Amino acid sequence: RLMQTATTVREVSRQLQRHPVRMTVRNIMIVTKARDNELVHLTRELAEWLLTTPRNGSDLGVNVYVDQKLRNSKRFNVQTLLAKDSRIEGMLRFWTPDMCWESPEQFDLVLTLGGDGTVLYTSWLFQRIVPPVLSFSLGSLGFLTNFEFAQYKESLGRIMNNNEMRVNIRMRFTCTVFRYQKHAGPNAPEYIEAEQWEVLNELVIDRGPSPYVSNLELYGDDNLITVVQADGCIFSTPTGSTAYSLSAGGALVHPDIPAILLTPICPHTLSFRPMLLNDSMLLRVAVPRHSRATAYCAFDGKGRVELRQGDHVTIAASQYPFPSVVSKPMEWFDSISRTLRWNNRGAQQKGW
Amino acid sequence: RLMQTATTVREVSRQLQRHPVRMTVRNIMIVTKARDNELVHLTRELAEWLLTTPRNGSDLGVNVYVDQKLRNSKRFNVQTLLAKDSRIEGMLRFWTPDMCWESPEQFDLVLTLGGDGTVLYTSWLFQRIVPPVLSFSLGSLGFLTNFEFAQYKESLGRIMNNNEMRVNIRMRFTCTVFRYQKHAGPNAPEYIEAEQWEVLNELVIDRGPSPYVSNLELYGDDNLITVVQADGCIFSTPTGSTAYSLSAGGALVHPDIPAILLTPICPHTLSFRPMLLNDSMLLRVAVPRHSRATAYCAFDGKGRVELRQGDHVTIAASQYPFPSVVSKPMEWFDSISRTLRWNNRGAQQKGW
Amino acid sequence: RLMQTATTVREVSRQLQRHPVRMTVRNIMIVTKARDNELVHLTRELAEWLLTTPRNGSDLGVNVYVDQKLRNSKRFNVQTLLAKDSRIEGMLRFWTPDMCWESPEQFDLVLTLGGDGTVLYTSWLFQRIVPPVLSFSLGSLGFLTNFEFAQYKESLGRIMNNNEMRVNIRMRFTCTVFRYQKHAGPNAPEYIEAEQWEVLNELVIDRGPSPYVSNLELYGDDNLITVVQADGCIFSTPTGSTAYSLSAGGALVHPDIPAILLTPICPHTLSFRPMLLNDSMLLRVAVPRHSRATAYCAFDGKGRVELRQGDHVTIAASQYPFPSVVSKPMEWFDSISRTLRWNNRGAQQKGW
Amino acid sequence: RLMQTATTVREVSRQLQRHPVRMTVRNIMIVTKARDNELVHLTRELAEWLLTTPRNGSDLGVNVYVDQKLRNSKRFNVQTLLAKDSRIEGMLRFWTPDMCWESPEQFDLVLTLGGDGTVLYTSWLFQRIVPPVLSFSLGSLGFLTNFEFAQYKESLGRIMNNNEMRVNIRMRFTCTVFRYQKHAGPNAPEYIEAEQWEVLNELVIDRGPSPYVSNLELYGDDNLITVVQADGCIFSTPTGSTAYSLSAGGALVHPDIPAILLTPICPHTLSFRPMLLNDSMLLRVAVPRHSRATAYCAFDGKGRVELRQGDHVTIAASQYPFPSVVSKPMEWFDSISRTLRWNNRGAQQKGW
Repeated sequence: RLMQTATTVREVSRQLQRHPVRMTVRNIMIVTKARDNELVHLTRELAEWLLTTPRNGSDLGVNVYVDQKLRNSKRFNVQTLLAKDSRIEGMLRFWTPDMCWESPEQFDLVLTLGGDGTVLYTSWLFQRIVPPVLSFSLGSLGFLTNFEFAQYKESLGRIMNNNEMRVNIRMRFTCTVFRYQKHAGPNAPEYIEAEQWEVLNELVIDRGPSPYVSNLELYGDDNLITVVQADGCIFSTPTGSTAYSLSAGGALVHPDIPAILLTPICPHTLSFRPMLLNDSMLLRVAVPRHSRATAYCAFDGKGRVELRQGDHVTIAASQYPFPSVVSKPMEWFDSISRTLRWNNRGAQQKGW
Repeated sequence: RLMQTATTVREVSRQLQRHPVRMTVRNIMIVTKARDNELVHLTRELAEWLLTTPRNGSDLGVNVYVDQKLRNSKRFNVQTLLAKDSRIEGMLRFWTPDMCWESPEQFDLVLTLGGDGTVLYTSWLFQRIVPPVLSFSLGSLGFLTNFEFAQYKESLGRIMNNNEMRVNIRMRFTCTVFRYQKHAGPNAPEYIEAEQWEVLNELVIDRGPSPYVSNLELYGDDNLITVVQADGCIFSTPTGSTAYSLSAGGALVHPDIPAILLTPICPHTLSFRPMLLNDSMLLRVAVPRHSRATAYCAFDGKGRVELRQGDHVTIAASQYPFPSVVSKPMEWFDSISRTLRWNNRGAQQKGW
Repeated sequence: RLMQTATTVREVSRQLQRHPVRMTVRNIMIVTKARDNELVHLTRELAEWLLTTPRNGSDLGVNVYVDQKLRNSKRFNVQTLLAKDSRIEGMLRFWTPDMCWESPEQFDLVLTLGGDGTVLYTSWLFQRIVPPVLSFSLGSLGFLTNFEFAQYKESLGRIMNNNEMRVNIRMRFTCTVFRYQKHAGPNAPEYIEAEQWEVLNELVIDRGPSPYVSNLELYGDDNLITVVQADGCIFSTPTGSTAYSLSAGGALVHPDIPAILLTPICPHTLSFRPMLLNDSMLLRVAVPRHSRATAYCAFDGKGRVELRQGDHVTIAASQYPFPSVVSKPMEWFDSISRTLRWNNRGAQQKGW
Repeated sequence: RLMQTATTVREVSRQLQRHPVRMTVRNIMIVTKARDNELVHLTRELAEWLLTTPRNGSDLGVNVYVDQKLRNSKRFNVQTLLAKDSRIEGMLRFWTPDMCWESPEQFDLVLTLGGDGTVLYTSWLFQRIVPPVLSFSLGSLGFLTNFEFAQYKESLGRIMNNNEMRVNIRMRFTCTVFRYQKHAGPNAPEYIEAEQWEVLNELVIDRGPSPYVSNLELYGDDNLITVVQADGCIFSTPTGSTAYSLSAGGALVHPDIPAILLTPICPHTLSFRPMLLNDSMLLRVAVPRHSRATAYCAFDGKGRVELRQGDHVTIAASQYPFPSVVSKPMEWFDSISRTLRWNNRGAQQKGW
């Protein structure tokens, strides 16, 4: 079944990437940090422009959903915004996390305003289907924030007028924590499913504040692959290959490649080289029942959860990938040169 | 077109890997080092067993092709072999490299006897379609030699009696050298296609005996990705990730992942981390026209070719992958633990 | 002054290493884990042998100091031990941590029984002068436990009969925490000296449980060398180069080399290569006053201390190195082959 | 003896580095690339200034030695230079490589003009005692070229007026090739000493054009340390730690640290981590007598020599180190930030 999910998602991804997605955008959601004053102002500017710029044959714009937290914000100031044109009253709407969970399909396009963290937050909001996400950066472009806000009119105008956009289908992982029931009765299940999260960058499992090193058992499709003795290990998507995995010594992986990166953090053997596993495998990481130490999981840097003795977490390619709108071909190579200074000129040996 | 090749090959691979291949084996080719006395004896033993063990309802075995060089070998001794049963005379045949090129489909199965080098040689023989290849190791198993010769009767018996086998479709690259025509007339082409090779492990481009470092331009789909300043660079398949790429610092990559590994050899910048590129990209490596130094290509460690100023070589996922018969699930993980001692226990930090 | 300390210690080390130390051993201290039953039995055996084996022209042995915690231990059983020979009553003595601090010179030789952790504990006991330390291993030899307990009679007999031993003078660091006094009055000092520890392996500074990365300022002799953006950084002695620093990617450094290893943990830049600094430099690591996060120090894996905004810690070559008794020449190379499997044979690329 | 050499050189180095060298400079040698037109012009300008600027109480300057190859150079034009002041005729002199070998002490100071290659060439010229070397860079400063030519008057004026300068005593290695005499008679020596070179950066031993990997035996003080299976290995001084060793994965090592860096090139085992050996050890690298392949040595990138079966090369800390004039404290840290972009800001992971 997992194999089929992986294959189907991969095939759909490929189709989508080859051809632009044709769609009429009628409902746009804007995600930003509601506490950042500057971002609230820009969100208001963007919302106004979207609401009032004529689209789709009408002399009005599109429906805009902003964060429910802005409804009573003085800085966002709904009243003065609505005062500009009485017809937009019903078009300015407010999203809540529940709506992202229950009816993600009501959003045709999500815009994010901020840094890579805001994109990760958007991924976290949409635990099931994710609408296409277009991410604006205010300052320098990041790995995930590939559109400059300064050009938002041109970028959005092109997409909304042509009714088409190119998307990159980024793999996510479904990570599920299972709790070992030590005192389960004879008919009770030995493991109970607990937390489940979709991650866009990575799952990190580490020793937390414990001075003892993790001894983690890694299984692939129920076969023991190895025992990890390290400060921790990272299971990263290709998207996450430019984040924590890279710091721990992992390779850079183009986001189109269907793979799960396993990168150890400070491993205890000299030979524990980073590895790329195929995405049709179900991975499972267990804390042995008689382990001295426990371990901690973090999902895209969030939601720290302790794995106690006997617990495990599974990692699988998700059936809900993350479609990010593409700004231009080769944008990934641009982002690594620009942001990482990958292979930028430095020292040169000279002969004589 | 390349994108389509990559996609088609990948889809077929996936289908093949999910289900065993059903086929009746009637024609078997044996590849070995014809100069190694011990191997010649074992080849004879294997050939005799294949020729005489009843198969497919007949009271005889299958057709066997051995290396043309063995026709007059005293050690192989065709005469005494044929003398055992007059009916096998027409069934013992001799293969030549030309046959591999012209009619690869006449072989239902190829057996290799020797080390990983013999498997690479088999890949080199079949520059177009490759029949399924089952590789025996004489001593310890290697990355590519995943069957023990000591159990050949059981292994081959199971496949030939059940008429089915599982294969792993390993990606190859098509590497093509293009020569720059410095003094081409106005209507002559600027580049002429020269050598072309399929590689199963890797293409290595290095500075050869030159003391000067290579300055190689790397293009992806005609966009300049970076300029490589290094002793050289390796373009490796996932199969080759356990070979030279690993020595140069590359990650271990499961052979099912469709990716091209770019691993620099002694790069001049601190930030030139190994990278995995998607296999739907056409890569091109060029020696700049005004470069001080030239570069050398080696294809699976063979066929050293000089790239002079202005020349380039292209690397693309091949439409002719290499189907290797699988001995058991998870065999790749076994091979890296056993052969590389990947993450085998060594030092352990102790607290107090 | 620091430069002079480094130089003097280094020169004395060299003299000591070239020639065996000549001394009559009259007082021996035994360090072990007092809670480990097996170790207590072996300590008793060793103590009895030392007390009763005739030495130095007398028909009795030498004075033996065991851990004060064993005075009332049923397993150690002082009474039955003393009952064997009334003359040893005054020769069996008990050490306390205070004695190690106040009069370390009263011990001619320290024996440790256990693992590398017991040796680190011995280093921690002796915060000033350290007597020569001879370390027994019960199982396989470690980096610091270079004598096999099974041969203790031969090893100690040779040293005590010849009145000479070879020692390796291992560098330690003096690490001193300074607390920033935010609200210091005009005449009060801005920094107050707080914890100070000698380390034999390493000082680790990391982000602790904080999700935010450390931004640590590194100064050498009051010049800013760099700002460390990483999960943390390790300042390791050559002795510690086989411990945590190695896991984080550091080089192996022979213990005779006077150097301070700086090894980053998961650094945020691709170019932050491990570095070796000269031991005549005073290093200082500061948490900037306006830093978002704090940092944590651990000294040889012990004594976790928080560095808050404005605090700093200094690292300098100590004037109190750690003299470890040498079992044989080249023992360091043996230990890395054996314990780390350094460069032990694994995969081999084969040509064809 | 080696131990004593190492110790003596180290102690003298330390004394020299702590205090400035006091000396009156009367004879200056200028080294540059005689074929580079721009450099010849600048050499002439520098020579004229040195010859004619009053020094040491005289109204003339100091004696200047330029490359013998410039004697008849039209660009250098000795005649017009001498025509400026008849008194300088005897003061403009010409150096030859022989003079560097036979009477190095006649030069009080050597100036180099060019890149790091020119400094390596100067090291090569002085195979025995090396005078203090001050290295000018024309463009951006390098690791070894730490003075800007644009400020030559200020830099040299300060040194020559104060009669003092600070020098950094950089370790060199003495590398000696020994040839195995296969057919030596009973009384003939088995090994004959052949090439001997001083290196400032590194000795590289590699497989050269051979497709077979090197199997090199590494001995320390006649004990086998390990067998190197790799494309090659680098024995680098701390000065060379920023050159080829760094490309192959070595650590950065401050030039004051007395150590020999062993850095493997593309090693065949996952556990062959770079190592620092103490400089009091005599290292020896041998090609086994029955090795399939030979190996090649390069000394500071020059003088390629083949090591055949049975031959070996020794590496030892030289008694002739390389004194380089210091431009300012902490210059090494500046050079690695500037030239390597060591730990310069790049990507940053962001939380949310």
